[in-house]
Amino acid sequence: MTSEAERRRPGRPAGASDTRERILTSARGLFAQNGIDKTSIRAVAAAAGVDPALVHHYYGTKEQLFAAAIHVPIDPMEILRPLRDTPVENLGYTLPCVLLPLWDSEIGKGFIATIRSLLAGSEVGLLRSFLQEVIAVEVGARVDNPPGSGLIRVQFVASQLVGVVVARYIIELDPFKSLPVEQIAETIGPNLQRYLTGDLPF
Amino acid sequence: MTSEAERRRPGRPAGASDTRERILTSARGLFAQNGIDKTSIRAVAAAAGVDPALVHHYYGTKEQLFAAAIHVPIDPMEILRPLRDTPVENLGYTLPCVLLPLWDSEIGKGFIATIRSLLAGSEVGLLRSFLQEVIAVEVGARVDNPPGSGLIRVQFVASQLVGVVVARYIIELDPFKSLPVEQIAETIGPNLQRYLTGDLPF
Repeated sequence: MTSEAERRRPGRPAGASDTRERILTSARGLFAQNGIDKTSIRAVAAAAGVDPALVHHYYGTKEQLFAAAIHVPIDPMEILRPLRDTPVENLGYTLPCVLLPLWDSEIGKGFIATIRSLLAGSEVGLLRSFLQEVIAVEVGARVDNPPGSGLIRVQFVASQLVGVVVARYIIELDPFKSLPVEQIAETIGPNLQRYLTGDLPF
Repeated sequence: MTSEAERRRPGRPAGASDTRERILTSARGLFAQNGIDKTSIRAVAAAAGVDPALVHHYYGTKEQLFAAAIHVPIDPMEILRPLRDTPVENLGYTLPCVLLPLWDSEIGKGFIATIRSLLAGSEVGLLRSFLQEVIAVEVGARVDNPPGSGLIRVQFVASQLVGVVVARYIIELDPFKSLPVEQIAETIGPNLQRYLTGDLPF
């Protein structure tokens, strides 16, 4: 009979990929249920039965863990940071210019597949958290005029951008699915800008 | 031993509900694969192994069969007909005023549930057909200025409306999910109108 130790491949702790997967599963569950803000690395570690240090070691920051949980192999902050340097009056056009090439890319394919399964499943709360907590904090605070309107403005922006994702990559409307990025950005940009800074009924 | 005939409930042909379900399944498959225009009642009947007259008897017109296939218990034409009487320059505002109360209603719940499962599954072609064939024909022809732009205009409108469905009913963004219909219509109306009749880069 072969012992447990003998069956392990050398140089690799047994079950490391199981542990990583268990952490991700716990993270998805907690993020979906409680949102990003109210989920701690410590809680994810506890749910997965591992040390918090191991979660940090495998996945880095909480934002990076969230990205991994929704199968985005990049730190969302890398996308959001350049948007911080964009003047508010240009955001409507810049947002699709930054996001569409990403969604069109190979990296984007995994993201779209995840969105698609999240939309159908019980973990749609992951999308809600991302849009309400990450995007609202990043962008909403900058367009909060009149005070209190920022969150709603951003949610209208989200409704248009989510609609582009669904129409272009999931429903694959023809010719919408193959329109050049520039043409989509020029078409939706002024509409997004109106949601962000226009005179709206709230 | 009870004979087959004895087990049947009186006054109801055996297997009628099976047959209806089999027709719907065939219809969903063919509509998803070939679209609405290229799917005939005859083809659906053949796929289900029944007489075309039975399909008509159970489901009426092809449009009504399509509505049943996507679990909408009303004829889409009943919704679309009032839109025909709306001047093109008011469509941007009228569209959400007609659609949102429907989606918010009890009837809408089944429709949203269907959209949600279609988005995740292999029959997303049903949505594509509906948007490309029904909506494009109904609305696209009226906003085809410059010639050839009508279909693209309508697909941008679809991207915003689908985004509202996803944000309000599926992701359930808060407060977006509970904004009054009037506020959403006034906010997205001018943007939809720009897609329909505005000066766009195509």
